[in-house]
Amino acid sequence: MTRVTRRYRFSASHRLHCGSISERENAELYGKCNHPFGHGHNYILEVSVRGPVDPNTGRVTNIGELDEYIERKVIRYLDHRDMNRDISDFENVVATTENLSIAIEGRLREEWNQLSGTPALDTIRVQETKRNMFEIRDL
Amino acid sequence: MTRVTRRYRFSASHRLHCGSISERENAELYGKCNHPFGHGHNYILEVSVRGPVDPNTGRVTNIGELDEYIERKVIRYLDHRDMNRDISDFENVVATTENLSIAIEGRLREEWNQLSGTPALDTIRVQETKRNMFEIRDL
Amino acid sequence: MTRVTRRYRFSASHRLHCGSISERENAELYGKCNHPFGHGHNYILEVSVRGPVDPNTGRVTNIGELDEYIERKVIRYLDHRDMNRDISDFENVVATTENLSIAIEGRLREEWNQLSGTPALDTIRVQETKRNMFEIRDL
Amino acid sequence: MTRVTRRYRFSASHRLHCGSISERENAELYGKCNHPFGHGHNYILEVSVRGPVDPNTGRVTNIGELDEYIERKVIRYLDHRDMNRDISDFENVVATTENLSIAIEGRLREEWNQLSGTPALDTIRVQETKRNMFEIRDL
Amino acid sequence: MTRVTRRYRFSASHRLHCGSISERENAELYGKCNHPFGHGHNYILEVSVRGPVDPNTGRVTNIGELDEYIERKVIRYLDHRDMNRDISDFENVVATTENLSIAIEGRLREEWNQLSGTPALDTIRVQETKRNMFEIRDL
Amino acid sequence: MTRVTRRYRFSASHRLHCGSISERENAELYGKCNHPFGHGHNYILEVSVRGPVDPNTGRVTNIGELDEYIERKVIRYLDHRDMNRDISDFENVVATTENLSIAIEGRLREEWNQLSGTPALDTIRVQETKRNMFEIRDL
Repeated sequence: MTRVTRRYRFSASHRLHCGSISERENAELYGKCNHPFGHGHNYILEVSVRGPVDPNTGRVTNIGELDEYIERKVIRYLDHRDMNRDISDFENVVATTENLSIAIEGRLREEWNQLSGTPALDTIRVQETKRNMFEIRDL
Repeated sequence: MTRVTRRYRFSASHRLHCGSISERENAELYGKCNHPFGHGHNYILEVSVRGPVDPNTGRVTNIGELDEYIERKVIRYLDHRDMNRDISDFENVVATTENLSIAIEGRLREEWNQLSGTPALDTIRVQETKRNMFEIRDL
Repeated sequence: MTRVTRRYRFSASHRLHCGSISERENAELYGKCNHPFGHGHNYILEVSVRGPVDPNTGRVTNIGELDEYIERKVIRYLDHRDMNRDISDFENVVATTENLSIAIEGRLREEWNQLSGTPALDTIRVQETKRNMFEIRDL
Repeated sequence: MTRVTRRYRFSASHRLHCGSISERENAELYGKCNHPFGHGHNYILEVSVRGPVDPNTGRVTNIGELDEYIERKVIRYLDHRDMNRDISDFENVVATTENLSIAIEGRLREEWNQLSGTPALDTIRVQETKRNMFEIRDL
Repeated sequence: MTRVTRRYRFSASHRLHCGSISERENAELYGKCNHPFGHGHNYILEVSVRGPVDPNTGRVTNIGELDEYIERKVIRYLDHRDMNRDISDFENVVATTENLSIAIEGRLREEWNQLSGTPALDTIRVQETKRNMFEIRDL
Repeated sequence: MTRVTRRYRFSASHRLHCGSISERENAELYGKCNHPFGHGHNYILEVSVRGPVDPNTGRVTNIGELDEYIERKVIRYLDHRDMNRDISDFENVVATTENLSIAIEGRLREEWNQLSGTPALDTIRVQETKRNMFEIRDL
């Protein structure tokens, strides 16, 4: 089994704020990520798929098709957007990168089975800053 | 003459929008950077100073003092902020990274002469993304 | 299960030298890492924790608390130190990065259970140079 | 169990072309990677081994010996070469990075058992570009 | 005056070989870069322009237009190509990265004056590998 | 005129300590860099030379010869060493990276004129950490 990872970039803004607790508790819990007007990051998304290598094409998956799919389902949806106001996934959910990773997985699942060969989705990894990485693994 | 460069990081959001032209012209001029609710980046700021090496200390400048100054004047002011709504420099000025570099230079100048030894400010460099860098040089 | 990774940096010096073998054997075994007065590196430490995402906070763990803990237990202890002479872990143990990783794990374990929510410690990863990485995984 | 990863670099050229399908199908399948005269990359190879830490040497494996082996078996064989015309592995096999990873594993296996201590080969990872990574894991 | 730098990537192959000297002299002069079937790299191209910041748009230059121009004149011409056989600039000229930089400057000059505002071309920088960078400066 | 930059790496340890001031003043001036047993870094050295491109070879300088020279004069001298105790340049001079850059320039000058073609030495750049860079420019 071989694992293939593709890397994508998008830039977005967010504010961490939880509706069910007080202003003071939000400030304590999220620190500067709770500043009222939000802030933003250059995110790096890595998607790994795994499967056998096709003996004819020498490929685990059709990379062009995978790129087109991820671009259409995820990158176009998030890039240069404000998560809290542009992205419906965060209407009732705090826009942490943990929840962003879960939202990305959900969107990738929607039409995944239409990808030719249906490679196994292995890992979704979102880097928010050089100091901060979030993964959903062995999917 | 030796040049010393220090690197800092901050994350902020902005929207590129010019008040004196139409919505359509803004969309054409700034593309996705004009999306109504803004987006954000992990910025890298590099500040270079130059001067002779002090024969006693072996230093061009007191790096701890320089860090404290830049942290106080620039990083704390911008980090985890929305430029358009939190930063007064961008009230009547488009929040491009060119203008951000100019605003950073202005703030650095304010009390620069109080730095011990008064090293010469050489270059301010702001990286917005891996693809995008802005510099004011030979200041 | 989501995995969250935080990245830290510290700079330290060390010398690889094993007391139970001869000078010549040390030189052969460790090469230039055995030079008598030691040398140093910029280390990168990545600590990964895993757990479910709290539906209220949207977080796997309290990152501020985790940072404070790792800073206190590990970074402050190692940063700008000489492992062989400043760090008691290496009194009778060769200061390889394998043993450094084990020492870091030991220190992290000491009060780990006092972290709120007690996230699972997943991986400790120490990069010594761009060419050299050491991990303790699936802890 | 500790995992040790070493990183190597080599530069090579290749052309993706499958002999059993038509020119048009090749162009569709591989896109610009099918251009007739080929193109090239700076590859990064990471090899991970795992095992217990020797209590005397403080090492999982003899890194100098591992480097010499990988340099001799893999790097010297591939560096500054054209895969399609210089490397016999790709005579009847498309020179994708999936197949390159498999070829590297094959070559590493050949005399692996002669390495002192015989560390377990854990992962082979080949990065073709910043956007593209291929791994054979848990070998 | 502000300087704006944009970064682009392309992958290509080449062989260093000089027609006017012997095989042996070529091998001595270019080493492994002279291997008969060539090899390749992931190149990074940085183009810097400088000029005043337009007080209305807050920009030194129209970045979208610049990207489109460089993509059309340079990237599409070089990406996934073999310099020696695909690129006419290297018919009678050795395909060193010095000469590649000069060829890129020549192509950028051809229609540069049609760029709106005609920003000054400041620097062309080509990174061949992490160890190797070539620049034409203060153009 | 084209500028060519080569990048090298070495790892070394040092302690910042000035013999002519008190212990307390040293601690204040150099902070944690004054810890008694020293610490270390992975240094990156970039050396830039400039000159015309030779119309026959397509090169500014003979890179293999330059590498051999810098390896012999600088890297072998500093790599895996303790600056304060192994390197005579720092017997009476504080081992700051400013002074390290000056020492490197001095050593490069010693036999520079014996390099074929005598390329102009343009810049010496030493990166101590990701946050810290020192340059001697336009030499």
